[in-house]
Amino acid sequence: MKIWQKNIDVDAFVESFTVGNDRAMDMHLAAADVLGSLAHTQMLNSIDLLSDEDLTLVQKELKAIYKEIEAGDFRIEDSVEDVHSQVEMLLTQRIGEAGKKIHSGRSRNDQVLVDLKLYFRSEIQHLVVQVEQLFKQLITLSEEHKAVLIPGYTHLQIAMPSSFGLWFGAYAESLVDDLELLKAAWKICNKNPLGSAAGYGSSFPLDRTLTTALLGFEDLNYNVVYAQMGRGKTERVLAQGMSAVAATLAKFAMDVCLFINQNFGFIAFPAHLTTGSSIMPHKKNPDVFELVRSRCNKIQALPNEIALMTTNLPSGYHRDLQLLKENLFPAFQSLSDCLEITTFMLQHISVKTDILNDPKYDYLFSVEVVNNAVLQGIPFREAYRQIGLDIENGAFQPSKEVNHTHEGSIGNLCNEQIERMFSEVKAGFGFEKVEKALDALIK
Amino acid sequence: MKIWQKNIDVDAFVESFTVGNDRAMDMHLAAADVLGSLAHTQMLNSIDLLSDEDLTLVQKELKAIYKEIEAGDFRIEDSVEDVHSQVEMLLTQRIGEAGKKIHSGRSRNDQVLVDLKLYFRSEIQHLVVQVEQLFKQLITLSEEHKAVLIPGYTHLQIAMPSSFGLWFGAYAESLVDDLELLKAAWKICNKNPLGSAAGYGSSFPLDRTLTTALLGFEDLNYNVVYAQMGRGKTERVLAQGMSAVAATLAKFAMDVCLFINQNFGFIAFPAHLTTGSSIMPHKKNPDVFELVRSRCNKIQALPNEIALMTTNLPSGYHRDLQLLKENLFPAFQSLSDCLEITTFMLQHISVKTDILNDPKYDYLFSVEVVNNAVLQGIPFREAYRQIGLDIENGAFQPSKEVNHTHEGSIGNLCNEQIERMFSEVKAGFGFEKVEKALDALIK
Amino acid sequence: MKIWQKNIDVDAFVESFTVGNDRAMDMHLAAADVLGSLAHTQMLNSIDLLSDEDLTLVQKELKAIYKEIEAGDFRIEDSVEDVHSQVEMLLTQRIGEAGKKIHSGRSRNDQVLVDLKLYFRSEIQHLVVQVEQLFKQLITLSEEHKAVLIPGYTHLQIAMPSSFGLWFGAYAESLVDDLELLKAAWKICNKNPLGSAAGYGSSFPLDRTLTTALLGFEDLNYNVVYAQMGRGKTERVLAQGMSAVAATLAKFAMDVCLFINQNFGFIAFPAHLTTGSSIMPHKKNPDVFELVRSRCNKIQALPNEIALMTTNLPSGYHRDLQLLKENLFPAFQSLSDCLEITTFMLQHISVKTDILNDPKYDYLFSVEVVNNAVLQGIPFREAYRQIGLDIENGAFQPSKEVNHTHEGSIGNLCNEQIERMFSEVKAGFGFEKVEKALDALIK
Amino acid sequence: MKIWQKNIDVDAFVESFTVGNDRAMDMHLAAADVLGSLAHTQMLNSIDLLSDEDLTLVQKELKAIYKEIEAGDFRIEDSVEDVHSQVEMLLTQRIGEAGKKIHSGRSRNDQVLVDLKLYFRSEIQHLVVQVEQLFKQLITLSEEHKAVLIPGYTHLQIAMPSSFGLWFGAYAESLVDDLELLKAAWKICNKNPLGSAAGYGSSFPLDRTLTTALLGFEDLNYNVVYAQMGRGKTERVLAQGMSAVAATLAKFAMDVCLFINQNFGFIAFPAHLTTGSSIMPHKKNPDVFELVRSRCNKIQALPNEIALMTTNLPSGYHRDLQLLKENLFPAFQSLSDCLEITTFMLQHISVKTDILNDPKYDYLFSVEVVNNAVLQGIPFREAYRQIGLDIENGAFQPSKEVNHTHEGSIGNLCNEQIERMFSEVKAGFGFEKVEKALDALIK
Repeated sequence: MKIWQKNIDVDAFVESFTVGNDRAMDMHLAAADVLGSLAHTQMLNSIDLLSDEDLTLVQKELKAIYKEIEAGDFRIEDSVEDVHSQVEMLLTQRIGEAGKKIHSGRSRNDQVLVDLKLYFRSEIQHLVVQVEQLFKQLITLSEEHKAVLIPGYTHLQIAMPSSFGLWFGAYAESLVDDLELLKAAWKICNKNPLGSAAGYGSSFPLDRTLTTALLGFEDLNYNVVYAQMGRGKTERVLAQGMSAVAATLAKFAMDVCLFINQNFGFIAFPAHLTTGSSIMPHKKNPDVFELVRSRCNKIQALPNEIALMTTNLPSGYHRDLQLLKENLFPAFQSLSDCLEITTFMLQHISVKTDILNDPKYDYLFSVEVVNNAVLQGIPFREAYRQIGLDIENGAFQPSKEVNHTHEGSIGNLCNEQIERMFSEVKAGFGFEKVEKALDALIK
Repeated sequence: MKIWQKNIDVDAFVESFTVGNDRAMDMHLAAADVLGSLAHTQMLNSIDLLSDEDLTLVQKELKAIYKEIEAGDFRIEDSVEDVHSQVEMLLTQRIGEAGKKIHSGRSRNDQVLVDLKLYFRSEIQHLVVQVEQLFKQLITLSEEHKAVLIPGYTHLQIAMPSSFGLWFGAYAESLVDDLELLKAAWKICNKNPLGSAAGYGSSFPLDRTLTTALLGFEDLNYNVVYAQMGRGKTERVLAQGMSAVAATLAKFAMDVCLFINQNFGFIAFPAHLTTGSSIMPHKKNPDVFELVRSRCNKIQALPNEIALMTTNLPSGYHRDLQLLKENLFPAFQSLSDCLEITTFMLQHISVKTDILNDPKYDYLFSVEVVNNAVLQGIPFREAYRQIGLDIENGAFQPSKEVNHTHEGSIGNLCNEQIERMFSEVKAGFGFEKVEKALDALIK
Repeated sequence: MKIWQKNIDVDAFVESFTVGNDRAMDMHLAAADVLGSLAHTQMLNSIDLLSDEDLTLVQKELKAIYKEIEAGDFRIEDSVEDVHSQVEMLLTQRIGEAGKKIHSGRSRNDQVLVDLKLYFRSEIQHLVVQVEQLFKQLITLSEEHKAVLIPGYTHLQIAMPSSFGLWFGAYAESLVDDLELLKAAWKICNKNPLGSAAGYGSSFPLDRTLTTALLGFEDLNYNVVYAQMGRGKTERVLAQGMSAVAATLAKFAMDVCLFINQNFGFIAFPAHLTTGSSIMPHKKNPDVFELVRSRCNKIQALPNEIALMTTNLPSGYHRDLQLLKENLFPAFQSLSDCLEITTFMLQHISVKTDILNDPKYDYLFSVEVVNNAVLQGIPFREAYRQIGLDIENGAFQPSKEVNHTHEGSIGNLCNEQIERMFSEVKAGFGFEKVEKALDALIK
Repeated sequence: MKIWQKNIDVDAFVESFTVGNDRAMDMHLAAADVLGSLAHTQMLNSIDLLSDEDLTLVQKELKAIYKEIEAGDFRIEDSVEDVHSQVEMLLTQRIGEAGKKIHSGRSRNDQVLVDLKLYFRSEIQHLVVQVEQLFKQLITLSEEHKAVLIPGYTHLQIAMPSSFGLWFGAYAESLVDDLELLKAAWKICNKNPLGSAAGYGSSFPLDRTLTTALLGFEDLNYNVVYAQMGRGKTERVLAQGMSAVAATLAKFAMDVCLFINQNFGFIAFPAHLTTGSSIMPHKKNPDVFELVRSRCNKIQALPNEIALMTTNLPSGYHRDLQLLKENLFPAFQSLSDCLEITTFMLQHISVKTDILNDPKYDYLFSVEVVNNAVLQGIPFREAYRQIGLDIENGAFQPSKEVNHTHEGSIGNLCNEQIERMFSEVKAGFGFEKVEKALDALIK
């Protein structure tokens, strides 16, 4: 059943090429599609385009389909083009003519637009919850190991004393800033495109403000041409938000792979969480973190892919946009997996506590010695020159006490401030308002 | 003068390779560098690392240098490695020993970090002002031409009636969402990294909260390891924010190039704003918009370039980061030029008013006819099928009246709502607080 | 069965995360894996690491497995980690101890390296065959419609006369250059990495020259560290080769979408090869070409994705590389589909023959008139200036005869030269040598 | 002087925006532009569009300008739009009317196309020469240090014995494959677009075969529409070729930064080739290699930038293409610098010779022990399991002799074979033929 079909059969080859993997992708949109129809039909009723009787029938059956989707009992049949057609077909099979009326005042273009925004909102919220779990684990580890010093590197050269407290805490704070990007994506997703029809609006007296409220959107995509233009743009912005988190995870994974390497040897994981080699029996490989790194670097390639697929397309819908689903949708699961497994692995990490006893790290303390001289009144540049000469002459004596006290330093991590920032950014999403609206819609 | 030089000359080839274009890039940071030193030295004085006399000397001279920078009288000498060294050298030449003391408790790493954030804040604010000018021009044109209909395309096929009101307004609303990305970049820029030293903090009892207030930052980059990790990340996020605006401009430019093409012929610009051809004397080429498109697509490539240059670098400073300046800094000017020239060109655009009289556009009205049938009680799918047959049989009669009334449609553009959204997003930046702090610092 | 497993169970979560989609991807490598083992075991026998009896057993059974793969009867079981383990397990189940010996002198690292190169060779050859079919179709259309003029555009402005002969022929010639990139990829694929083991060679006296000959490779990846370094690099180069073809297809698709648009109206396809709209019954949308464009732009994003996933990884194997399969492998099928459907669609294209009768195209001929003046002795710049004034004054009279005779122009398309170039590039691959070697191996 | 200017002044703002940096970029094309005109005018004379007298005048003066360019005495004046106009203006100033005739039968479009191809050919040849110098240095180091063992890593875990012979040699062989990409770019550059005019050919009876021979091109871009389509495509392919070399350099630089790190400590450079830190006096930072890595990663971003700027542009010239020069042209110098400085640094590298005496590397030899067991008749999987248990029980005894003998292994580097491959690829460019043609043209 293709709803635009009249009396000419589309060549089977063309059909299979054009549908592609779209049915599989559309399964992700099923719940959102029903939510959109629940709101749309309430609105149609409010402007007298759907009778009270029909509305009752339609709402009851849509809610039943929603439950089937949640239970995993929904599928898109091979003979059906997409999720929108499948839902409409089920409805019509079950309640007859009333089912056909839900498409009034709507095009598949704005239907998929609103489905995408509802789906993306849900995925963003899911990611934020997982980011928070990782954040908390990192803060916990930062506090737990705040007294354990490690070398700090610049240019990958031994530079100054650092600590596990700083290292874990840095990645926690990184996630705070990453949420700003996810929030920008959320803001852009959280506006209602429904009612834009095929991108040029409708002659029906639609009440778009009503569907906006029913679906818990913050505001409308007012201009209908812009609502359509949001396709591709929303995906790109969202991919950028995911990339922010992914970049943090990938960088952390790179550090882990380096620190677990035997030349560093700063951290370890239990044997059952590493993997072996077919030919080198002693290996304990950090495959999990290599794959976190790789998956996250792949996610970082997404915004550019979307840009390449949408650049230089004039305004108005193009079928090109369908394919944006294919790498983006699975990326949600992939990033979610990466967040979950990183949190899980960190629950099992062990850290080496006596790293800086190795004399090769003595030079880490050269700056401390310079600074002590400055505190005793010697101008910085002169102290610096003197210690440099001492080091060259082998006369350098490290003082291994670290007395960093300022905000964010080894002795004053400010993790509670970082937690405050996290809470503030998270609060800015306003998930509760959305949840409340959707609960009311589906109850 | 390279401040890390002791008694071994660095090979000239190596020096020229490593410095590269960095002096030219650093010129963009000069004002920010002085602002950072003004705040840093006030803070040093507050923790008794700089005497009141030295502070007075230093502040006076730094303000003098700031004025020279603003007047265009500042340059980085060939023998000087970077902007930080140049400022420090000028200071020492002019006020002697006191000038050398400003580097206490600071590394070039956190110095460039804070310079970048101050510079980026300033550029973001500049872009937002220009975005607003274009936004207003688009809203003005949308209102001015709201009654002029044009064809709306889907699949680049003639689809439904649209209007210049919708077309101009859509790009105005696009800029609203683009500001969300610029705001995320602003939020990430608007945190203070100063005091993170080489990325591992300092044994001096720095008061980072004080420099945060003095420089008008919203908050700190607390964790010093994270503060350093912000290098590269800040640039990437900023490039994404610029790309959002660039993507809107590029898409608009594509539409312009299409609509000015003789097969469409919807719009025109005066002859003196188009260019000719060496071999085709009748041409009036839209070079400005082709170059806006091209420049903006180039800007869209920036986030990926930054990702490629920073991916898989472990935490800690790497010299790689220096080169992030090279394409990013000129992009500010380029995007600013694109915004300015687009606004300028739109002040001279003329639109064709009778486009839809051409009978090739009659089919635009088929959906209207379907919808009228629905409003008379015919189920949508049946009305749709009937009009489809009429069109195939040549019996279709368009009704060219367009009565779109819902939010964001031809007859109800909601431009005042879009203006409200713009104001709300802009207010979220909080430029005034920053301006006030910087004024106090430099006065 | 994981061959590196000893007596510690790997956590199920870790296992599912690390395996990911790899089994599905590995199905593409099954035939190649058997070919590699056929060559490897012959070589092991030649250096007395496998007895004649074992060799006979192994070869017979490997060939049986190869037939099962070709028949679609092979699968990788859920309990088995990858294709290499599955083949080895089948072998051991069927022929006992001898099956276990095929892994001697080999690591999974060089095994997957050689599998990839064999698989890529096969896919490249397949693509070249399809490129040739499209090439021939384009040449046929170029010849068929060589007398039909169309407007040529520069800056998307009407510029000079062109023809369908030129338009179709241009894309044919584009494919010739694209083959150069595919050939570079082929050259890099066509070197033998087998024998590099885990990337550091083996203490067995392997005869890598023998496996090179048996597998039809042109040469060896000699240095074993480089052989391993080829992972990721080979994929990137291959993705660039595919991108070259994809870029040509995407550009052609863009032209088609423009030329089929009603404002141009230069070409058409039968109704059963276009698709309709749910709300605009008159539409005949070029969905096939929009999706060719989109798929091909997606393929153009692949080299960058691979770069992002491999940049800044030090030498030596990393698990990251596994994920390169995930977007690359399906891209072969996608590009193949695009080539096939473009060729198919072009078998049904119809072209409008009287386009230039429309007076809006009169200015196309201005250059002709300038050139005629030059041929009559008027200096070019003067003739140019005069015609320009005529056009401005409305005095311009086009002469619609086009007498282009030079190489590659409307009147002298040189399609036979373009066909010669295609044959020359194709011959440079040397597919026959490879086919002959593989036939001998599997017979 | 803008040659398409008639009597309307183009607004100064528009002019400055559209010209941008193009004059600076065009300086790179000056020599090529003269070469193109030397060939074009000879051809014009051969078809009687330029008299013998004019030809003599023009050729003499063009050769004089060529010498000025080579001497650095040529510049593009601010009032002149581009290099083509500058050369034509100089010519006309010096020899009068004859100078104006050189533009007959040519457009700036095909003029810049041929300039680009000539310039790119020259740059490719220059890069190949530098690649060869680095290649030879790597081979020399590989031979020099072939007996010095180092740990080989997989998953960045200590894995198996490797050697400096393998490490240096691997990067040498990598350059061989990289040349295949540069050769593909060369092949595509080495075809003549001159005579395609504005992309639709000319009514003059041009002899394109003659200019092809005069300029030493291998063949023609026959189809004039394709010749124009080569713009953007040529740049992309070339950027891919440069990226291949850049990827090898970047990976090598990453290895260097890791191996010079104090936790590895495998290699060193003299102090005057490393740089220091403003706050850590003991540092010897590998800035050169960090910047090689960063520059080369930037170059790897180029193909994608070009793709983003050209994707979805319909066929025919667009002004967008002008901006492709801006990042591409400086990349030649940047890559050339990276090749030169890497070769230079390698002339001063020192390697540590007793690395494997450290007991942490004992496990490197586990595979050797497994293989020895296999050579004594124990099935591989059993030997593997036994050694694994020995390692877990602390009973493992390494045998530190490495007897790798097969092609490309520690004991048999095959550097002479790798040198043979390099020579073969290089010979395929055919630089001599091009040099000979250009010498004849300019003599």
